[in-house]
Amino acid sequence: MKGWVVVAGLGPGSEALVTPEVSAALAEATDVVGYIPYVARVAPRPGLALHPSDNRVELERAALALRLAAEGRRVVVVSSGDPGVFAMASALFEAMEARADWQRLEVRVLPGITAMLAAAAAAGAPLGHDFCAINLSDNLKPFDLVLKRVRLAAEGDFAMAFYNPRSKARPGQFAQVLKVLREVCGPERLVIFARAVSTPEQQIRVATLAEAEPGMADMRTVVLVGSSLTRAVGRFVYTPRSA
Amino acid sequence: MKGWVVVAGLGPGSEALVTPEVSAALAEATDVVGYIPYVARVAPRPGLALHPSDNRVELERAALALRLAAEGRRVVVVSSGDPGVFAMASALFEAMEARADWQRLEVRVLPGITAMLAAAAAAGAPLGHDFCAINLSDNLKPFDLVLKRVRLAAEGDFAMAFYNPRSKARPGQFAQVLKVLREVCGPERLVIFARAVSTPEQQIRVATLAEAEPGMADMRTVVLVGSSLTRAVGRFVYTPRSA
Repeated sequence: MKGWVVVAGLGPGSEALVTPEVSAALAEATDVVGYIPYVARVAPRPGLALHPSDNRVELERAALALRLAAEGRRVVVVSSGDPGVFAMASALFEAMEARADWQRLEVRVLPGITAMLAAAAAAGAPLGHDFCAINLSDNLKPFDLVLKRVRLAAEGDFAMAFYNPRSKARPGQFAQVLKVLREVCGPERLVIFARAVSTPEQQIRVATLAEAEPGMADMRTVVLVGSSLTRAVGRFVYTPRSA
Repeated sequence: MKGWVVVAGLGPGSEALVTPEVSAALAEATDVVGYIPYVARVAPRPGLALHPSDNRVELERAALALRLAAEGRRVVVVSSGDPGVFAMASALFEAMEARADWQRLEVRVLPGITAMLAAAAAAGAPLGHDFCAINLSDNLKPFDLVLKRVRLAAEGDFAMAFYNPRSKARPGQFAQVLKVLREVCGPERLVIFARAVSTPEQQIRVATLAEAEPGMADMRTVVLVGSSLTRAVGRFVYTPRSA
């Protein structure tokens, strides 16, 4: 048996958003590695070993996947959304740097529907023009850099998508982000709070920056901020193609 | 029969990247509307009317879809990639502004795998940290704004994805973008030219900014530019999670 590692995106939640390519990889796998709730989305079957692990152990998880593949196993590392967007693909390549033999393994990344694009579709088309994706968590970067990027994106009149806007460990930081946005974009700018998109708990809430409050977001929320041209039509929010 | 419009993303090319949600909508459709090469990707069947149209008639195409739905038809507007990223979703909402009755129609946007994320997956994980998506075409915005956004994104040390980097009508503009990038990012920054991703013609080419030349891109290419931390491991390029 020849081993391989696939890093696969399961999309934001609904099985209807899992690509056939990802389903095919899961059908061939001998091992599934990932954060507990994502591994729980994979149906168990005989011959398939599940390796769920806790949050914030991305490098150990990636090393496990590479070690199993080096032993000849067919390993799928599951990620929610797209594995290349604030998820497991970067961690896998980081782990791969440690050993030359791991760099010769067969590795593929299979894209998925990332949360911001599912959220945008549910709301209309708020990312229909130039946009930025920013992870607001400061686990792996200084928060000053987050604020700098938010400010530059606002000055460039980009639409924006924020991942991990708020956690219990840092309740006040998202308020600082909103403050920067109000300074640069003014109070009328449209903001979308998209929670648990594509799941039964999906909730889409549209507010202006004046109305936006930190408590509208939690760790299951993606926040989308429009450009100066973003507007509502009926129940939808969209950014025009011209700017 | 109750009419509806779905704007659906077919992904970058491979059928293995079409979500089950999109396949289900196509199976229920009475009408498929879209740019000629995308409509050509839909298998004909009895009872399905195909309405292919030429490039650059997005608003007329959107109006046709809404008119058909208002007559009770079940219409899928097909888009390549994700319809919410430089594609048909914004045009649909723009057309919807013209008529109050169209705003009461049942409309859904179904996300797809957008070209930059398929390209990133094929190359490794170059968009694994904060990034921007910029359409380099000046069909619908001034080119000065393109250059301003590229400069701000580079100053923010974002990774970047460029759609429509180059066309016959504007052969010199991409050279100007590369010049701005060299000024802000220096010659060693990694650039990926990803052409026709997920199709049999797929080609991934990695260069430094010093080596990058406008001729490496055409209209089927997505260009990805790394952040200051983006690096190679084996045949892959990735951006670390910390920054």
